[in-house]
Amino acid sequence: MIIDCHGHFTTAPPALGKWRERQIKAYESSGFRVLPNELRIEDEEIVAAIEGGQLKLQTERGTDVTIFSPGAGKMAHHYGDATTSLHWSQVANDLIARVCKLFPGRFIGGCQLPQSPGEGLETSIRNSVEELERCVTELDFVGCLLNPDPSDGYWQAPPLTDKVYYPLYEKLVELDVPAMVHVAMSRNDAIQGTCAHYLNGDTSVFMQLCESDLFSDFPTLRLVIPHGGGAVPYHWGRYRGMMLDRGRPPLEEALLRNVFFDTCVYHKRGLELLTDIVGAGNILFASEMIGAVRSVDPETGRRFDDVKATLDTIELADEDRAAIYGGNALKVFPRLEGVLRKNKQEVAL
Amino acid sequence: MIIDCHGHFTTAPPALGKWRERQIKAYESSGFRVLPNELRIEDEEIVAAIEGGQLKLQTERGTDVTIFSPGAGKMAHHYGDATTSLHWSQVANDLIARVCKLFPGRFIGGCQLPQSPGEGLETSIRNSVEELERCVTELDFVGCLLNPDPSDGYWQAPPLTDKVYYPLYEKLVELDVPAMVHVAMSRNDAIQGTCAHYLNGDTSVFMQLCESDLFSDFPTLRLVIPHGGGAVPYHWGRYRGMMLDRGRPPLEEALLRNVFFDTCVYHKRGLELLTDIVGAGNILFASEMIGAVRSVDPETGRRFDDVKATLDTIELADEDRAAIYGGNALKVFPRLEGVLRKNKQEVAL
Repeated sequence: MIIDCHGHFTTAPPALGKWRERQIKAYESSGFRVLPNELRIEDEEIVAAIEGGQLKLQTERGTDVTIFSPGAGKMAHHYGDATTSLHWSQVANDLIARVCKLFPGRFIGGCQLPQSPGEGLETSIRNSVEELERCVTELDFVGCLLNPDPSDGYWQAPPLTDKVYYPLYEKLVELDVPAMVHVAMSRNDAIQGTCAHYLNGDTSVFMQLCESDLFSDFPTLRLVIPHGGGAVPYHWGRYRGMMLDRGRPPLEEALLRNVFFDTCVYHKRGLELLTDIVGAGNILFASEMIGAVRSVDPETGRRFDDVKATLDTIELADEDRAAIYGGNALKVFPRLEGVLRKNKQEVAL
Repeated sequence: MIIDCHGHFTTAPPALGKWRERQIKAYESSGFRVLPNELRIEDEEIVAAIEGGQLKLQTERGTDVTIFSPGAGKMAHHYGDATTSLHWSQVANDLIARVCKLFPGRFIGGCQLPQSPGEGLETSIRNSVEELERCVTELDFVGCLLNPDPSDGYWQAPPLTDKVYYPLYEKLVELDVPAMVHVAMSRNDAIQGTCAHYLNGDTSVFMQLCESDLFSDFPTLRLVIPHGGGAVPYHWGRYRGMMLDRGRPPLEEALLRNVFFDTCVYHKRGLELLTDIVGAGNILFASEMIGAVRSVDPETGRRFDDVKATLDTIELADEDRAAIYGGNALKVFPRLEGVLRKNKQEVAL
């Protein structure tokens, strides 16, 4: 089974974006709340968006199932207050749940969390715990996106290793679901979103984890760092050396029981470095589809985000390939198997 | 000739740090200025710091000359105001000039610029133009460090492609010297300095350049992106795809006539990726010595920052190796040859 652990509903029907725009404008101009139940999207619109987009590519490429979450950039946690983010997350996550119901076995939910920067941070983490629980226990989601910079490009929050986040980690451990660490948009002109802020977020958080004892406090917590780990595998020696300089344990011991990298690296040489440097046990197949890059690579004749086709050309032991394509995902997202079984039973009925 | 284009005086005599501390405290507590001429450092102290540090490693490793600049983290442009940064830059650059005079032919200066964030930005760029000119024309420096985030970890300035920086680019072009884009310290708890902020700075600026037409306005401007380009070569496909998505010219055409990467990547696999992906003509040898990582790699028995030893084990055509080790540096830093010749004449006298 081939599991893509990183896909976003970037092709959602336009009504979603319009609801969000109204929500932000109403709150900013008058403090008025546009409520989640004011959004109307028909099943047909969802089916059209998915069948013409993600499902089409998924089928062409031979991916069985995608862990599917709301558009990451559009989480845009800096808008409004903690309640703004809560309503927006409910709307975005409910839509993902509908995709999963409409295409059982092909999409499994990962939720957006109602995070908020500044004064709302602590409240927003309490809200995130509740929204995570709702998504996992009521909507059959198997993971979530955790934004290390809810200020969206200005890094105003403490590191993810700060105790303010601990209630969320307790809930992640209790529910046995991982978080993918994923920034949202950048509203900072100096830091573009998909090709700078995304990668910087990955790099910054890996280093936050190197400096902390988070995994001593939460030995079973699992975090996925997307986009191939940002700059990390390319600079692996730098991190190894820094840990030695500081008298810290090796990366394998300090981090690699808990931290996993995805394969969203859009060229063969980069993927080779990833699979050479990071053991196969810590790599999860993903293509971030439909996401940051949509063009066809003139050198290969395939889309840049067709990671599977590229990964297929890389020499790997059979068991390593199987682990990367799906075996690891089943371990990192242990609820996945149960949800897939339930989907099958529902389809059979 | 082997030229290391990226070394910092991180081992400067303690009096330097004490002067800086007094400068910051005096300004913060009472607006009082501690002046540059209040610093006293004897030649013997400089000689001891260099002979026991950089020169020792340089000789052991077989590097002929290092382009030597003040400690990058310690530029710390966010302290005080534009005049604080100006005095600090004069002090730090004058000390580099003394190193170069004491060890002719082994160290050539790269200067720190008196940048400042916020309201002082524009003034600080005017001051930077003057300090650059002073260092190049009076002290025989051949390049400078340009900080894309003078707020030191909060990214409060416009991108480096903003017109506010144009007077500096005009001066760089006029003097025919390049800038190495290099952030200073991070005062943001979420973004560690050497293993997050440094790499993020490189990645962010590369993307700023991808999005702009800076090099149409300054066709002969040359920028060096250190630390192997941050995350960029590892994510080369992402950048290639993004340029296609936006209908922009290929990276080779848009950037690679003007942008160069250094080799501060501390493991063989990473350096192999760099030399495979980025043509040899755009790579400059550097080791960031003595810098971010100081340990010995137990896997090789050599220090992580002994980039030359690692690069020597990588298969490269002879002409490519020569270009990376020195040929490119002579082109990117065209004043270097003249300064070396002058050094030799002075030694001969």
